[in-house]
Amino acid sequence: MEEIERIVSGKKGKIDVTPIATIFRNEIKEEVTKGQMKPRIVAFLTTDDAGAIEYAKWTKIACNRDGIEFILKKIERLDLEDAIIDANNDDEVHGIMVYYPVFGGMLDAYLQDVVSPAKDVEGMSTTNRFNLYHNIRFLDEKQTKKCVIPCTPLAMVKIIDHLGIYDKSLPMGEHLKGKNVTIVNRSEIVGRPLAAMLANDGAFVYSVDISGVICFQAGKRQGTIKMTETTVTRDEAIQKSDILILGVPSPKFKIDESLIPEGAVVINFAGCLNVEESVESKTILVPTIGKVTIAMLERNLLRLYQNQMQSRSTSSSSSSAQIDQPQQ
Amino acid sequence: MEEIERIVSGKKGKIDVTPIATIFRNEIKEEVTKGQMKPRIVAFLTTDDAGAIEYAKWTKIACNRDGIEFILKKIERLDLEDAIIDANNDDEVHGIMVYYPVFGGMLDAYLQDVVSPAKDVEGMSTTNRFNLYHNIRFLDEKQTKKCVIPCTPLAMVKIIDHLGIYDKSLPMGEHLKGKNVTIVNRSEIVGRPLAAMLANDGAFVYSVDISGVICFQAGKRQGTIKMTETTVTRDEAIQKSDILILGVPSPKFKIDESLIPEGAVVINFAGCLNVEESVESKTILVPTIGKVTIAMLERNLLRLYQNQMQSRSTSSSSSSAQIDQPQQ
Repeated sequence: MEEIERIVSGKKGKIDVTPIATIFRNEIKEEVTKGQMKPRIVAFLTTDDAGAIEYAKWTKIACNRDGIEFILKKIERLDLEDAIIDANNDDEVHGIMVYYPVFGGMLDAYLQDVVSPAKDVEGMSTTNRFNLYHNIRFLDEKQTKKCVIPCTPLAMVKIIDHLGIYDKSLPMGEHLKGKNVTIVNRSEIVGRPLAAMLANDGAFVYSVDISGVICFQAGKRQGTIKMTETTVTRDEAIQKSDILILGVPSPKFKIDESLIPEGAVVINFAGCLNVEESVESKTILVPTIGKVTIAMLERNLLRLYQNQMQSRSTSSSSSSAQIDQPQQ
Repeated sequence: MEEIERIVSGKKGKIDVTPIATIFRNEIKEEVTKGQMKPRIVAFLTTDDAGAIEYAKWTKIACNRDGIEFILKKIERLDLEDAIIDANNDDEVHGIMVYYPVFGGMLDAYLQDVVSPAKDVEGMSTTNRFNLYHNIRFLDEKQTKKCVIPCTPLAMVKIIDHLGIYDKSLPMGEHLKGKNVTIVNRSEIVGRPLAAMLANDGAFVYSVDISGVICFQAGKRQGTIKMTETTVTRDEAIQKSDILILGVPSPKFKIDESLIPEGAVVINFAGCLNVEESVESKTILVPTIGKVTIAMLERNLLRLYQNQMQSRSTSSSSSSAQIDQPQQ
């Protein structure tokens, strides 16, 4: 962390997030050991995609080191839905993940919701996203089962926090007050949940996709989000930004370095870097966040594990529904 | 219906589905009048799309004639989610529909699930689709609230039935036994639910999209679907088909008429015709199905209305959850 602190105070340089991931993973490992937990993730892979296989390999290594069992299952795409339902109903499985795309498009959105929100370790189900957008913290009415948050946005928030950008002297909900953030990505997996989370912490967020820019701010009631249309362009938004978050999955997509303010924080979560590496000479550059994302996957798994242990101790039968009823 | 019967027995000609729609709408009108019902649909429009406005106009005319109130609300896209939630919680609203695309992509899939399954008159929520694919007929464990089926696939099945293609002398689940069907569209809104429904009735279905062909058949257990990969191409599938269903939203997309067997039934639900009109000289052509789709919207609304009246008579508070717990 000393190296990170040095770069942050100098306001330029490239940051390796490994020390941040390590903080979380050590906590998780300790919790698993102390609690004599046996958490298990099942991950479904339906393609030969080299990137997914590589990512699965690193996830397995991290999980195993931290006391978590990670089982990768290669299956046919037409068997996936049944396999997910079997895993939903298997008491020995605490978290389920799927490497997308499987079919692509709306059918993949459907499959995301076949995963029970109670085992949705990546936080990708509509129920978990709806609850995030509406500041609903629990899956059940009795408020015993905590919701999970999508791993990548959660990792991003934790990184921003550990870079010391949150002003903890301000009240909750205002830690990012006065900060402008531009997020180039508005997917339901990362960009939009992240925009809502940072707005919820007080930031003014420009959410950018190919169709334009939408602004996200905290709403009047705590936990609500106000979205507004804007005529500000992507490049104008970047020029105003304290934090720039990049997630365009194309190696050809690069933001013009001259638009980025000196001393800004640039965090890239696309598989490829959406800016020239030379930007580190004038900004704080976080080129990849994958290690912290894996730590958040583990963190979510422990939450789900605890939810499941708790519900088993209070009821004789396990839940088998894929879409739980959220609170409103 | 006489004209339709004449064309079907002659195995060629163009069919206007108005008489089929009229049968359903007359039944609905009678039911509404007899039951002194006051069913109400709220439809949200966020764009100036001329096609959507035109379709809304015809839907309103049909609904009003049949005793159903249809309220079209033009709103800003960023206000849509809150407006849907308000309508979910409004006891005077029995059905909610949204004209898509709003944002496009996964965000629209999310919005579809913000609509309560209890008011999802178009049958587009994940809960209603999951239940369709898994032969789950009720939204609640007590089996008092019937699920609804997506309007367009439901309209298609009713049209095929009224053309006399179902062999009712065979047992339930085998009415389309021996029939090959090709569906050029595998959207979650029409193509895939329709493939499952026709397979469930005994047909062998080739489900086609730009990525290829997947076969749908009835599974071993009643109500389950077996999907298989195939090397059969789209054109080969069409050449084997008794029924060809077309739904590609591009005026440039046309199926080569010479591939279509003589006497086949060709049903087109794209806004534009995906085959030359001259195909009516050798097949039974149903160029549009919109009127029956509107009748099915009304039919779904009555089902939802009855569900809601029933649950109000058995409980003091109305449900406000957007994702109900389905049975598994």
